[in-house]
Amino acid sequence: MKDATQPPETIRWTADGGGLVILDQTRLPDDRIELELRSVEDIEEAICSLRVRGAPLIGITAALGVAALAHQFAVRSQSEPRVPDGPAAAANLQTEVQSWCERLTRARPTAVNLAWALERMLSTARKQPVGTARELAESLRREADEIHAEDRRMCRRIGEHAVQLLRDGGSVLTHCNAGSLATGGIGTALAPVYVAAERGLRVRVFADETRPLLQGSRLTAWELGQAGIDVTVLTDGAAAMLMSEDPPDMVLVGSDRIAANGDVANKVGTFAVALAAHHHSVPFYVLAPTTTVDLNTPDGKHIPIEHRAPDEVRAGFGKLTAPPDVDVWSPAFDVTPASLIDGIVTEQGIHRPPYETSLRAAVEEARRA
Amino acid sequence: MKDATQPPETIRWTADGGGLVILDQTRLPDDRIELELRSVEDIEEAICSLRVRGAPLIGITAALGVAALAHQFAVRSQSEPRVPDGPAAAANLQTEVQSWCERLTRARPTAVNLAWALERMLSTARKQPVGTARELAESLRREADEIHAEDRRMCRRIGEHAVQLLRDGGSVLTHCNAGSLATGGIGTALAPVYVAAERGLRVRVFADETRPLLQGSRLTAWELGQAGIDVTVLTDGAAAMLMSEDPPDMVLVGSDRIAANGDVANKVGTFAVALAAHHHSVPFYVLAPTTTVDLNTPDGKHIPIEHRAPDEVRAGFGKLTAPPDVDVWSPAFDVTPASLIDGIVTEQGIHRPPYETSLRAAVEEARRA
Repeated sequence: MKDATQPPETIRWTADGGGLVILDQTRLPDDRIELELRSVEDIEEAICSLRVRGAPLIGITAALGVAALAHQFAVRSQSEPRVPDGPAAAANLQTEVQSWCERLTRARPTAVNLAWALERMLSTARKQPVGTARELAESLRREADEIHAEDRRMCRRIGEHAVQLLRDGGSVLTHCNAGSLATGGIGTALAPVYVAAERGLRVRVFADETRPLLQGSRLTAWELGQAGIDVTVLTDGAAAMLMSEDPPDMVLVGSDRIAANGDVANKVGTFAVALAAHHHSVPFYVLAPTTTVDLNTPDGKHIPIEHRAPDEVRAGFGKLTAPPDVDVWSPAFDVTPASLIDGIVTEQGIHRPPYETSLRAAVEEARRA
Repeated sequence: MKDATQPPETIRWTADGGGLVILDQTRLPDDRIELELRSVEDIEEAICSLRVRGAPLIGITAALGVAALAHQFAVRSQSEPRVPDGPAAAANLQTEVQSWCERLTRARPTAVNLAWALERMLSTARKQPVGTARELAESLRREADEIHAEDRRMCRRIGEHAVQLLRDGGSVLTHCNAGSLATGGIGTALAPVYVAAERGLRVRVFADETRPLLQGSRLTAWELGQAGIDVTVLTDGAAAMLMSEDPPDMVLVGSDRIAANGDVANKVGTFAVALAAHHHSVPFYVLAPTTTVDLNTPDGKHIPIEHRAPDEVRAGFGKLTAPPDVDVWSPAFDVTPASLIDGIVTEQGIHRPPYETSLRAAVEEARRA
């Protein structure tokens, strides 16, 4: 995996530490465009427009973003002779951090990782002893780097647990993109595929194109192709037919939020894939870090579902594909009931029903670790 | 329905009777472009490229096309003094008709209506007593007009049977386009919606966009909007979520071929909708003329399924939406098993399981009529 064909980094610091460089995922696979984000507006826009997307990656982006903004604040405090850096400046920065976190938390409502990462940044800001803005900014940077590094480790561990489910010469179906482009590491749903490839197993991936924003055909197909993994794209509606004609060994998907009972919010279309898998007795697995598990959400009915703008469906390719004023119903996510899910894989292992028990144990174990 | 907002005619004769004028459905909803077809190559290309599509309409197009070509042949015979029109010219035309029918039958393999309509044209050509090419061409024109008129009547009767299933203020979900653009009349799946509108019932239609060629968002949404019927577009993957959140009263779809046991081939994605409907106890109905029932095909496994070109998925909007060389699996149709279908509506009535019996009775009744 560590060769020239690996997908480029999804996110990194600017050289001065006061901004982020992201790969604009809305431009793939045509163009590899990097964008610099230097304001809270930039970060918010990048998240809302899905320039960065994937539940883990938007958490990382928000955390790194807050740290970059804090760095800018500290630099300004240093260069402002009338207001020397000290406890007053640090307190002002704390207030700023709170406002940035509140704003970014609202950028997308469904993925719990965003709120979770920002909660960690806010908590870091609050528990900082009275010092300077510079010290606070440095703490925030360390925390953001730690969130990023933890995500990388969690991806790796998810891959190592789930690779046991795969076989040489086998095939899997995935929906949307829960790969390296969605995380800080080797992905969640795709992590076992990358680990299998490292170990010399050949695994074929079927990638649903994933309307309306085509994360499957644009991103999953691209990153797997870059890594030399065999990938075939199909339309979302064709997945049920595939399971009749040439059933994959299993379905592997990521998640934006997992309720305490094991109901899973993921990209719209996932529920239909789960129904088709269930009908054909194809095992259906969800792969996500324990940070995606929200024990405060009892079940899927309580997960807030983001709806997207009509023109993503009516004219999503720069071309009118529907009457320009037609009504559109466009939820970004759907909820797959726990009853259709054969297993949930986190960095703690492979969890089986009843999920009320197994997920709670996994989350508690992760907290102790 | 007979007002200025009605969708334009899908097909008509040219003024001279030697060609067809079709609405190019690949250009909707942006442009209303009419094309003239004057050769067997033109007709074949229009069917293969889905400029005309919908199982009933491709049968009508092929039948009218053969008659138009026969008309041209007869005119040439009249104007060719060395070969006076007579039994020899008629026999030559019979041979030509056979060759046109064989060629056009191969244009698309799944819809049985195409083969059925061409079989009728061929049989007309064969049973013609020895006469002139002009007489034979006139018989073929009458037969083609009759196929077209029968289709219009069948659509109306399907609509009148199925309208009993609808209620004022209700809603239905449909997939692909089985409306007026797919037939010579008011459609099959959409026929009861048009009949309901004529009777003053308000019925809301949810239209799956239907990847890859977007017949739902481009065609169904457009023709219903033209007729003033409330329509909402959703992505194919969102249908299962809709059935959880705001379930429609029922699903209404068309078909390209119905096997003797009630298994139904229809546009890819239909099977997934049927699974979602079944999971949510939403009734699932298939609407098609008895000419779509193929008693010679015992079950869905025996229905030939057309596969489409990869670029319809990779670059279907004039824009690359996947890596340019990625593998694509793109069946045009899928098979919904009879066990997921609550009823099949033909011009003979609403048929219920066991379909082996009810469909056979309907087909026999249609033959007697």
